[in-house]
Amino acid sequence: MKKKLTVIKVGGKIVEEKSSLNSLLTDFATIEGCKILVHGGGRSATKIAAQLGIESKMLNGRRITDAETLKVVTMVYGGLVNKNIVAGLQSRGINALGLTGADLNIIQSKKRPVKDVDYGFVGDIENVNVAILTELLEKDIVPVLAPLTHDGEGNILNTNADTIAGETAKALAGDFDVTLIYCFEKKGVLRDETDDNSVIPFISRSDFEEHVASGIIQGGMIPKLENAFKALEEGVLEVVITLASAINSTEGTRLKK
Amino acid sequence: MKKKLTVIKVGGKIVEEKSSLNSLLTDFATIEGCKILVHGGGRSATKIAAQLGIESKMLNGRRITDAETLKVVTMVYGGLVNKNIVAGLQSRGINALGLTGADLNIIQSKKRPVKDVDYGFVGDIENVNVAILTELLEKDIVPVLAPLTHDGEGNILNTNADTIAGETAKALAGDFDVTLIYCFEKKGVLRDETDDNSVIPFISRSDFEEHVASGIIQGGMIPKLENAFKALEEGVLEVVITLASAINSTEGTRLKK
Repeated sequence: MKKKLTVIKVGGKIVEEKSSLNSLLTDFATIEGCKILVHGGGRSATKIAAQLGIESKMLNGRRITDAETLKVVTMVYGGLVNKNIVAGLQSRGINALGLTGADLNIIQSKKRPVKDVDYGFVGDIENVNVAILTELLEKDIVPVLAPLTHDGEGNILNTNADTIAGETAKALAGDFDVTLIYCFEKKGVLRDETDDNSVIPFISRSDFEEHVASGIIQGGMIPKLENAFKALEEGVLEVVITLASAINSTEGTRLKK
Repeated sequence: MKKKLTVIKVGGKIVEEKSSLNSLLTDFATIEGCKILVHGGGRSATKIAAQLGIESKMLNGRRITDAETLKVVTMVYGGLVNKNIVAGLQSRGINALGLTGADLNIIQSKKRPVKDVDYGFVGDIENVNVAILTELLEKDIVPVLAPLTHDGEGNILNTNADTIAGETAKALAGDFDVTLIYCFEKKGVLRDETDDNSVIPFISRSDFEEHVASGIIQGGMIPKLENAFKALEEGVLEVVITLASAINSTEGTRLKK
């Protein structure tokens, strides 16, 4: 039987505020089995960039990463956010290890080719190092992944945290029974965007297609769910979209194949 | 027979400039046997702190680390400097792993008690995790240590890189034949401070005491050498003080018991 692995992605807002971070880490520490935490940090990056006089340029929710911005995200994601999480988990008895893709060559990527848009120093994932991640997990080490990868040629690249969580979950699905949890600022996928309590508890691929056709699911939720269904098709057992405060509950929206 | 381990400490100036960092990493990559790189980053921290409007206060060469300064050093040491070194080593075929003391609970420390001076969030090392470091080294992983530790209660603490290198070298001296190299901005310990070529190639404890008495060795070099002799007394085989560009040569000043 495969071991259970939970991959949790938490966004900037949760990990950047001390009280919500503390709650999250306490909840995360109680999850049984192997686990990986993937974090964002965009709000802090934007704030510190602004303090340094660097303008944050976003396109389709993605950060245009010029050389100066790359320095900021390397500092903020790889240093400030990652190390505070690691220290917080250690204090809860979790043997956390903060990693960018460069550390132990965990995630190698390729600089995104310039087409209509030059995203700058942004990496598209080429390889997740399953052997090393498995070895760490087998030793009860908890990888804490910053949204940074490397190109194998000495360069750090900025990489979306949702994508890192999804690719890591898929890569490890051969060796583990993987649940992928995307922490979200709403209780889950809502039937009515104006009603926080209209969470759809379960969505199948066909439900999803119907909901898109009828306009219930729209905007940024469409690519998010597309990626979630791809993860299921590539072996992830379950994808959950929920509040960070509900990672240990049965709340939120569940996707199964 | 014990395996050979080289612990190298490099200061901010070397690792913060691209060309000197590249030379260092290329030289470091060729060192045979197990190795650990400990880096500083004070110049970048001071620069970025200034850009953020935070004044850097130093006392006896140590940074007074208030809450805002702690954020800066966590970003700069744990993120910017550490991850660029790790990516650079990976591109040279070295399986580098960037670590603060919090990661894998490698180095635990205690916040320095306030006496005459409040150094703020500065940690005095209490424990180096020999078992985990040994396990990493046995797997040909190269730890890259940022000058940050943790207190086991969720707090990152700023810790002098020279001290981290010395304590790590001493802690591992039971399991390895350890050489500790302090990279220095001069060719070694000089007989005449105004003559860069007056390097003293070898200093014993009694030479050291004589040189201090006669005034040849003075100022900041005295505590540096005191620490080096302590490392020798606690099992380190050799301490070398040399230029970063000379880590693979027989140049510099050598201390043996």
